[in-house]
Amino acid sequence: MSEPVHSRRGGGREAKRAARLGAVATFAPFIERKLPFADLLDEEGQSLIEANAETILSEIGVEFRDDPEALEIWKAAGADIKGELVRMPVGMCRKLIQDHAPREFTQLARNPARNIIIGGKRTVFAPTAGPPFVRCLDKGRRYGTIEDFNNFAKLTYASPWLHSSATAMCEPVELPVNKRHFDMFYGNATLSDKCFFSAVSAPSRSQDCVDMAKILFGERWMNSETGEPNTCLAGVINGNSPLTFDATMLGAAKVLARANQATLITPFIMAGAMAPTGLAGAIAVTLAEAMAGMAFLQLVKPGAPVIFGSFVTTLSMQSGAPTYGTPECNLMMNALLTLARRLGVPSRTGGSLCASKIADAQAASESAQTLLSTCMGGANFVLQSAGWLEGGLVTGYEKFMMDCDQLGMMQKMLAGYDLSENGQAMDAIRDVGPGKHFFGCAHTQANFETVFYRSTLADYDSWEKWEAEGSLDIQQRANAAWKKILAEHVSPALDEGVHEELRAFIDKRKASMPDANY
Amino acid sequence: MSEPVHSRRGGGREAKRAARLGAVATFAPFIERKLPFADLLDEEGQSLIEANAETILSEIGVEFRDDPEALEIWKAAGADIKGELVRMPVGMCRKLIQDHAPREFTQLARNPARNIIIGGKRTVFAPTAGPPFVRCLDKGRRYGTIEDFNNFAKLTYASPWLHSSATAMCEPVELPVNKRHFDMFYGNATLSDKCFFSAVSAPSRSQDCVDMAKILFGERWMNSETGEPNTCLAGVINGNSPLTFDATMLGAAKVLARANQATLITPFIMAGAMAPTGLAGAIAVTLAEAMAGMAFLQLVKPGAPVIFGSFVTTLSMQSGAPTYGTPECNLMMNALLTLARRLGVPSRTGGSLCASKIADAQAASESAQTLLSTCMGGANFVLQSAGWLEGGLVTGYEKFMMDCDQLGMMQKMLAGYDLSENGQAMDAIRDVGPGKHFFGCAHTQANFETVFYRSTLADYDSWEKWEAEGSLDIQQRANAAWKKILAEHVSPALDEGVHEELRAFIDKRKASMPDANY
Repeated sequence: MSEPVHSRRGGGREAKRAARLGAVATFAPFIERKLPFADLLDEEGQSLIEANAETILSEIGVEFRDDPEALEIWKAAGADIKGELVRMPVGMCRKLIQDHAPREFTQLARNPARNIIIGGKRTVFAPTAGPPFVRCLDKGRRYGTIEDFNNFAKLTYASPWLHSSATAMCEPVELPVNKRHFDMFYGNATLSDKCFFSAVSAPSRSQDCVDMAKILFGERWMNSETGEPNTCLAGVINGNSPLTFDATMLGAAKVLARANQATLITPFIMAGAMAPTGLAGAIAVTLAEAMAGMAFLQLVKPGAPVIFGSFVTTLSMQSGAPTYGTPECNLMMNALLTLARRLGVPSRTGGSLCASKIADAQAASESAQTLLSTCMGGANFVLQSAGWLEGGLVTGYEKFMMDCDQLGMMQKMLAGYDLSENGQAMDAIRDVGPGKHFFGCAHTQANFETVFYRSTLADYDSWEKWEAEGSLDIQQRANAAWKKILAEHVSPALDEGVHEELRAFIDKRKASMPDANY
Repeated sequence: MSEPVHSRRGGGREAKRAARLGAVATFAPFIERKLPFADLLDEEGQSLIEANAETILSEIGVEFRDDPEALEIWKAAGADIKGELVRMPVGMCRKLIQDHAPREFTQLARNPARNIIIGGKRTVFAPTAGPPFVRCLDKGRRYGTIEDFNNFAKLTYASPWLHSSATAMCEPVELPVNKRHFDMFYGNATLSDKCFFSAVSAPSRSQDCVDMAKILFGERWMNSETGEPNTCLAGVINGNSPLTFDATMLGAAKVLARANQATLITPFIMAGAMAPTGLAGAIAVTLAEAMAGMAFLQLVKPGAPVIFGSFVTTLSMQSGAPTYGTPECNLMMNALLTLARRLGVPSRTGGSLCASKIADAQAASESAQTLLSTCMGGANFVLQSAGWLEGGLVTGYEKFMMDCDQLGMMQKMLAGYDLSENGQAMDAIRDVGPGKHFFGCAHTQANFETVFYRSTLADYDSWEKWEAEGSLDIQQRANAAWKKILAEHVSPALDEGVHEELRAFIDKRKASMPDANY
């Protein structure tokens, strides 16, 4: 592993750096929730599902495929191994997680003012990751390119409501599969200064991302107090649900964990496909699989930051396609967030998920149902929160903007009630009195500019004005909005030495291997 | 008051009648919630706002305008009267309500299988009431007519997710204002057999509705056990917020309460206009005003069924228009539901509210935010839950269908978690094992037809199939759906004698006065 030289890059403290990088004053690096969690599954149900998850782990087991090292690690820890099937004694996974995994942790951003803290009462929003297609009103649906990826990196940077970027806001499908991660890392690192993700499509690509992060973060990579790296990257580790992890995911997870980088251990559960249609069963499978993955990483590297992820959907029994924003999805997400809190680890679920092909009312209903449930339940990390369309096959430009507006609303909602004297406004109520209006009173004058969330896309004009201006729907307004942001984009300053070193690393690594599309 | 003769209409018991009227087997007359309430305002905040409401009632007061009888009633009860301003001693309103108002009550429907119970853990959905305009994809935005009203009565009857009709799903504006209520009552009574509402636009019109209800309900009108009428109608009594009731509303409320019919005492609060922008202040004003109205009716007729209504919106500080589905609306609605439970009366709030002119993604986001918050918070009666557009100026045909689909999802969500052995599905998890799929397993086969809510409007097909079939958005699918229902409508059978008597009453009353548009 080539270790970049840190000493030649000057530093100064986080605050100083934040000032130099021009952190936006109104930007909150993450949400600090003031509302209670809305737990929908009662205590009895929680215990029942936890017991079922232990039964699944101890009697049915989890397969760790094509990774002999993983089996050795489990064996040494006392699990029962049959071929690639690992059965963990009752309580083993829970204890490993509770003994070692952090309840919350900080992920560094290039701009220290944008470091995020994941866990507890905090919520972090990140955009959609993974779609091979993109869609906009002008060009319709088409394959994503690196230009699209970079556009979404810019839109992510611009939104005050997105706290982190992702890996692939869309796949740049024109680039070779084995080299895309360099370009995506480069885009996230140079066009934005927010947190972002590691590639996980092969262990070597995760290692490349770790190596690039060392260059990008310089002296901030290593924590002198703990003597180990700071967490600068996160990677989504999906199970091959049900109850299976493959060598690719395990390899990537090990690379990240050993470098003290974060993993979101995320079973991918379509109830009716990778789990039973019974919600209590699907929740138990998700819990068991996530616990197995998180416990494994605590054996690999005790203390490695892990997030209990869940990606749970229902299924259309007509078409076999996943369905989003359904009542059953809401219930599963909520219960899994409760179970993550009981386990004592940060959680990931939800987002602005939908099945609709286009950013119509179906997409908006499904996304709002998902997002509000995600926020009421108290997810700590919310990937897929902007741009998602068509079950994750498409990232939509207009949808991205519409989702960001909704994220702003959620941030405002989670701030809760202002119970100060100004919030109570008793003097104003007294002054105005019965039957009068508050439009012009001193209290309203003093508060109206900031008191309510201001949507940048919703139309609140009169029907006459709206019609005179072309009867635009919200997609059309969103279309203008993303174009304006892209036209005005200015990348945050990056130390020239760092930039050159990163570029050189990427060029050298790309030249070291032939293009491949696997 | 002309008292219709009941004895000549034969009866039999409720169950027998239900069978004869052909109650739909799968229809649930109301939702019995299995989820806990999601209370977002903490105990300290609840007490603070309750104390502020008492301060408002005792020090600022509420105006009861142009109704000397109301002032007499308050005076006799011990309130402080100055002109038309009534100041109620601390605790007076709360005590009147808690001593007399029912915690829950039954409203009869023409079809007894569709009687609703309002209060406790129950939720009832009713459509939009009040808009002068309607909108559909074919004809755009236009004034509502009695044909439109009747269409919405039919759509309400057809939806398994609407438990009650309303008054004016749209205003039939071609009819004289002083006679519309006859036609709307007639439409609701003959095209549907669900619960519905009384007119409240003048006390005499409420009396007409009471008289028509006596005809329609026949022997079921009077409760032989209590010696007073059953509750067969409900009426929305809006305050002239802030802190004012006018003679029209008071008159209508008195007519209904004295006949033991239900009233939804509903302050109409746009924070920033009828209340301060501070949410805690706006909530306190709403609570105070609603308590004053409900307490007044307990003085008029102790035990009269009342519902603590709240219609709370924020305001666009740019256009001055009300805004819906905002984070502040969610917070206000939730707190008011908590406060209604503490007071011990049924609650009304929310619906599928939106500001958008059309059924686009803006409308859907706003409506979903409102509706999910309404349901998480546990509203007992949800008016405005289907069809609402443009801040209540327009009832949309496509929006109506889309909203009904969402209501079905909410009914499914509120049913909560199935923790039975079938819901846990441990045998299925055991049988399928790691890495396999659940599509064909016995458990899935046994459950798939009923386990998940099935949207009638969402598209879950592949992109290729969706495109080949015309790339329809959800509005276009909803357009076909409402036309199909109207084409297939068959009105529920109505006793011919009752029908004739109702028709004769209406004709006589209409002939007794000239048309007037006020």
